[in-house]
Amino acid sequence: MDPDEAAGCPVPLATGERVTLAHGGGGALMHELVRTVFAAALGTDTRHDGAVLDPVAGRLVTTTDGFVVRPLFFPGGDIGALAVHGTINDLAMCGARPLALSAGFIIEEGLPVVDLRRVVESMADAARRAGVTIVSGDTKVVERGHGDGLYVTTSGIGLLERDIRIHPDAVRPGDAVILSGDLGRHGMAVLCAREGLAADPPIESDQQSLWPAVAALLDAGLEVHCLRDLTRGGFATCSVEIARSAGLDIELDEAAITVAPPVAAACELLGLDPLYVANEGRFMLVLPAAQADAAIDVLRRQPGTAGAAVAGRVGAGRNGRVSLRTRLGTWRHVPMLSGAQLPRIC
Amino acid sequence: MDPDEAAGCPVPLATGERVTLAHGGGGALMHELVRTVFAAALGTDTRHDGAVLDPVAGRLVTTTDGFVVRPLFFPGGDIGALAVHGTINDLAMCGARPLALSAGFIIEEGLPVVDLRRVVESMADAARRAGVTIVSGDTKVVERGHGDGLYVTTSGIGLLERDIRIHPDAVRPGDAVILSGDLGRHGMAVLCAREGLAADPPIESDQQSLWPAVAALLDAGLEVHCLRDLTRGGFATCSVEIARSAGLDIELDEAAITVAPPVAAACELLGLDPLYVANEGRFMLVLPAAQADAAIDVLRRQPGTAGAAVAGRVGAGRNGRVSLRTRLGTWRHVPMLSGAQLPRIC
Repeated sequence: MDPDEAAGCPVPLATGERVTLAHGGGGALMHELVRTVFAAALGTDTRHDGAVLDPVAGRLVTTTDGFVVRPLFFPGGDIGALAVHGTINDLAMCGARPLALSAGFIIEEGLPVVDLRRVVESMADAARRAGVTIVSGDTKVVERGHGDGLYVTTSGIGLLERDIRIHPDAVRPGDAVILSGDLGRHGMAVLCAREGLAADPPIESDQQSLWPAVAALLDAGLEVHCLRDLTRGGFATCSVEIARSAGLDIELDEAAITVAPPVAAACELLGLDPLYVANEGRFMLVLPAAQADAAIDVLRRQPGTAGAAVAGRVGAGRNGRVSLRTRLGTWRHVPMLSGAQLPRIC
Repeated sequence: MDPDEAAGCPVPLATGERVTLAHGGGGALMHELVRTVFAAALGTDTRHDGAVLDPVAGRLVTTTDGFVVRPLFFPGGDIGALAVHGTINDLAMCGARPLALSAGFIIEEGLPVVDLRRVVESMADAARRAGVTIVSGDTKVVERGHGDGLYVTTSGIGLLERDIRIHPDAVRPGDAVILSGDLGRHGMAVLCAREGLAADPPIESDQQSLWPAVAALLDAGLEVHCLRDLTRGGFATCSVEIARSAGLDIELDEAAITVAPPVAAACELLGLDPLYVANEGRFMLVLPAAQADAAIDVLRRQPGTAGAAVAGRVGAGRNGRVSLRTRLGTWRHVPMLSGAQLPRIC
């Protein structure tokens, strides 16, 4: 190799190295970053800008999600696992089997390469466990002060293997509303990590793939009308979204909604309502009331949805409103979250 | 509507308003932003997190790309049109007809809503012209000082309608290398806009969809071996990427490479080599030498590739090196760009 070639040759990333603007420039340093950090963990073909998928039969579902969580690492997860699971979950909420993911990275100059590597390896691990492939990626670097370490945008392609339509449109009066588990873990785990609040025991994020639970519901032949993962805005806002989209009222039952004691304590300390706190491993399911028990049975046998319970019903009213029957037996109106209860939690 | 409902009710965006953190919180303000800015221009169904596509027959191609260009608006384009065309072009470079795009927006608190609207409308316009649909999207807001106005990450799904493999692997010794037009417009348009340099006449970005040109090549039955859009790192770096991936030498001919006079003047002023400057509407095509004339004929009839010319050939050597025959008849080695010649140009 002549010196000229060597000048344009990949430079190995040293321990302790930080990402520089040059790592985003499209040249040899970027190739080295892509080769040693991304391709090494994800197994992507970096020789071409698009990835050709195997032929599939069925309707495809696609989704995209940006992740700007701060801090990048928190109890129970990190931005990488979160990005993989968040995108898988958006596909799962349409009833689609996740097939392939793409990931775009916007890196702030100065990010330690060791942190980037840890995130990418976490993504690879989450994808492997979920049986999806990360098929393409992109890396951009922005100057110090124009980012916040790392932003990840993931897109997913899923396959709808059945002739079903899971959508707020499909919700009917009298349907049962099932909640897959306790609320508020992800939002409070991130907030406690960010603010340095030590809960005892520490609160771990509930971030996880929801596809196994959804697949089990579909495999059981249940008539799933609507699914929604309870991320930004929490269970309350997601319920209002569905009620409004369906043009039907939803009645929730506070006694059926569980919040783990450390989460409840942290929420109380900070004046937050767990109904509005984001989750990354919980969903609501709307289906005919006659199938509610069967659905609960299916969910309780799946890891991650062992706490599933009927938490409400779709009423006869057509105002698109959500009401909550409190533990005292009174009713209170549940509005949509009006602003940002917790910024940067996903 | 009771007062409680009104409190959680969409608030119309006022003229002159800026994006706030609350617009990313998942509540009523975010719904209003999504409804009035994104859904209004893009026609996306905002009621569900995934989009179901119509059934397709064929192999799918997927790609993702992040856009962090600064400034957001520049002569000949903006971050929105660039994001749409950049993703379409990655699909086109695989020979795939672009079908659907997803877009993730990371917005810095304080971005004028009027700017966001202008970007989104530009995306909608670019997608409409290209015959693709933007089917899903996501919005996150980060605090002032943790972004730079707006970052957009787009993903695309394309359909490979023919049984072809367009890949550096397919390149053969003796193949012709065709360049679709003059070099350096995009990078210099963005750089001049950023640095306040006034070229006369002003340099406009070449950003455009390359699918019509690729479709015409495929429709003509040409045996396309490899395609590469000449973005970050420019024609030089892309040639090196292909040479290395193919394990073959490439010989370029400087006399066949054109650079418009204002672009050449700006490059000279700034000490930049146009061979390394990014383009967003130019590509290189590698195909059997016997088909080069036919390919040039096809390309010259397409808008945007009227300046197509044979710019080199794949040699017999197997070192993965690129050489340039200068106008003086001497040969010089062309290395990969080693760092970032121009940061934040896409």
